Amino acid sequence: MPGDGIGPEITEQAVNVLKAVVEGSDLELSFTDGLIGGAAFDAEGQPFPEITRQQANEADAVLLGAVGSPQYDELDRPLRPERGLLAIRKELGLFANLRPAMLYSALADASSLKPEVVSGLDILIVRELTGGVYFGQPRGIREVDGQREGFNTMHYNEGEIERIGRVAFEAAQKRGKRLCSVDKANVLETSELWREVMNRLAAEYPDVELSHMYVDNAAMQLVRAPKQFDVIVTENLFGDILSDQASMLSGSIGMLPSASLNEKGQGLYEPSHGSAPDIAGQGVANPMATILSAAMLLRYSFGRGDLAERIENACVAVLDQGLRTPDIMQAGMRQVSTAEIGEAVVNAL
Amino acid sequence: MPGDGIGPEITEQAVNVLKAVVEGSDLELSFTDGLIGGAAFDAEGQPFPEITRQQANEADAVLLGAVGSPQYDELDRPLRPERGLLAIRKELGLFANLRPAMLYSALADASSLKPEVVSGLDILIVRELTGGVYFGQPRGIREVDGQREGFNTMHYNEGEIERIGRVAFEAAQKRGKRLCSVDKANVLETSELWREVMNRLAAEYPDVELSHMYVDNAAMQLVRAPKQFDVIVTENLFGDILSDQASMLSGSIGMLPSASLNEKGQGLYEPSHGSAPDIAGQGVANPMATILSAAMLLRYSFGRGDLAERIENACVAVLDQGLRTPDIMQAGMRQVSTAEIGEAVVNAL
Ligand SMILES: CC(C)[C@H](C(=O)O)[C@@H](O)C(=O)O
Ligand SMILES: CC(C)[C@H](C(=O)O)[C@@H](O)C(=O)O
Repeated sequence: MPGDGIGPEITEQAVNVLKAVVEGSDLELSFTDGLIGGAAFDAEGQPFPEITRQQANEADAVLLGAVGSPQYDELDRPLRPERGLLAIRKELGLFANLRPAMLYSALADASSLKPEVVSGLDILIVRELTGGVYFGQPRGIREVDGQREGFNTMHYNEGEIERIGRVAFEAAQKRGKRLCSVDKANVLETSELWREVMNRLAAEYPDVELSHMYVDNAAMQLVRAPKQFDVIVTENLFGDILSDQASMLSGSIGMLPSASLNEKGQGLYEPSHGSAPDIAGQGVANPMATILSAAMLLRYSFGRGDLAERIENACVAVLDQGLRTPDIMQAGMRQVSTAEIGEAVVNAL
Repeated sequence: MPGDGIGPEITEQAVNVLKAVVEGSDLELSFTDGLIGGAAFDAEGQPFPEITRQQANEADAVLLGAVGSPQYDELDRPLRPERGLLAIRKELGLFANLRPAMLYSALADASSLKPEVVSGLDILIVRELTGGVYFGQPRGIREVDGQREGFNTMHYNEGEIERIGRVAFEAAQKRGKRLCSVDKANVLETSELWREVMNRLAAEYPDVELSHMYVDNAAMQLVRAPKQFDVIVTENLFGDILSDQASMLSGSIGMLPSASLNEKGQGLYEPSHGSAPDIAGQGVANPMATILSAAMLLRYSFGRGDLAERIENACVAVLDQGLRTPDIMQAGMRQVSTAEIGEAVVNAL
């Protein structure tokens, strides 16, 4: 589902890479194009049309470009591109959003932080994606005593907290074995329950060291000393904010993939960056984040960590060759197009 | 109200500075000591006892140290120190929290960000402080279908948004005339109304340039290019996160004051940092943020910008003398105690 803005050009490269990596392997992939976001609105009058819903449900995995463009800003909210993204998350029950924030050593200079603060940065943020204030009911704008008021409900039950907790503990087991659960338990009851469930789960994962941090402090620590973190788990809204903050620490958000998984192993894979309508169609967008999302797709929806690693290694090799799209261009490197990066990754494979 | 941890030692210095600056001026201040947080719990069994409530209401301004200490972590939530802070905000109707995030040129190296990204940083965050999910009803933990669930309500009415909006527009008029309103209007109805009211207000402040930004993007932009901001206005929870993130950009949160104002000009003034129980009582805490909060107290609750500036200049002079508490110590500077900083500021006055 290419979506809007730079979506089509970056997914095109990622699909080429997927085709190349499975060629000659024992995995066969069959591809279907789907419409989502503004592109779907243009064609079908809806950001998440029925046909897309069916395709999504039938697929093992969805590779998504990005949604959103200023031309849709005046639409009624339910018709806007972002609603397509929220709808597919809810439809597929994609409760677990995995967002690595890491610094590629070839791009160490790109960060706005001092090199010693971020060199070797490698954090995984596990964001709950189908609960919290994003989907809580009741919600709306109503009139009370002659005055309008907006209201939303933040909401989590034990089951929802437990299942994202398990994903995070298991991810931590495979990494540095440290899990930091971020909440606002000094103010919110929702967070009180969140913290209680995380503490209960900790007993089942004795090899993982669990800590808790308030969200305001987490936002500070991500600036002050981000390398203190291994895996962070948090609820939907906090995860939205912190995962974007964390991805910007690397200075090269054009390199960062994401995966959103459900309980059946289906997943949606998309770059961490947005649709960048200002540079769409010019062939200058960085397809790396989408290519790396395709790697996550192979790892999580097809159990093919081996093929995923081949793609990841190929991306590093292309960086080492000095090829750069404009967003990560540095002196002494060679500036190339979106398609040239894609081709270089295929060649490196 | 000294509060907990380092609170007593830092407020002591700020009170000395206040006494020194009004001496010989036409302003007379009378001081009363009040209990809040853990200190109040120890003495009265409550983090915000009735006597404190009365003192707060009678005062023109409250100078607060900090609340919180691990020894209170096992108390029932309503008895914990932070609840004292939430209670005084609500009791006095302190809806407007002003939090400057700035970099003192003498401390430019302290930041974890590259010098060119933060040098000259000077942002004002205007955070709504008595609404949103902090105080919204209904809230709690309940059992539904044999499963517990936590829920909170995010809530703003037009009047609440308008009054914080006016504070922010007026602050922007006195500064760089650029106001960025941060929300999550692509997901939350509360934010939809927020954005609508900000747009409506903009017509009354034609000299201020209003922009809008989603909270996730704001968290990114504060890392990427924080100097793009002049004044930021946002709701309570987003303000909690972003103001802490922004204050950490300077690397010297021990220097950053805050003011929380109501509609009657009463205010509560406190450092942006916490109670740092690990270093309490050792005479090593940095009292500058509290001293600078006392300056804000003179400016906002007593209309004495002149006296405020004298304190602010004295603080800069002390930095220029090379005096530093350990938190901001650098090679070539002289490390001094909490009290020595206070005395140096008094002398500089
Ligand atoms: C577009 C928006 C609804 C979405 C979100 O807030 O979840 C985006 O910011 C993200 O993080 O994927
Ligand atoms: C202590 C806590 C309740 C408080 C808040 O969240 O408002 C603090 O973080 C702050 O920002 O003053």
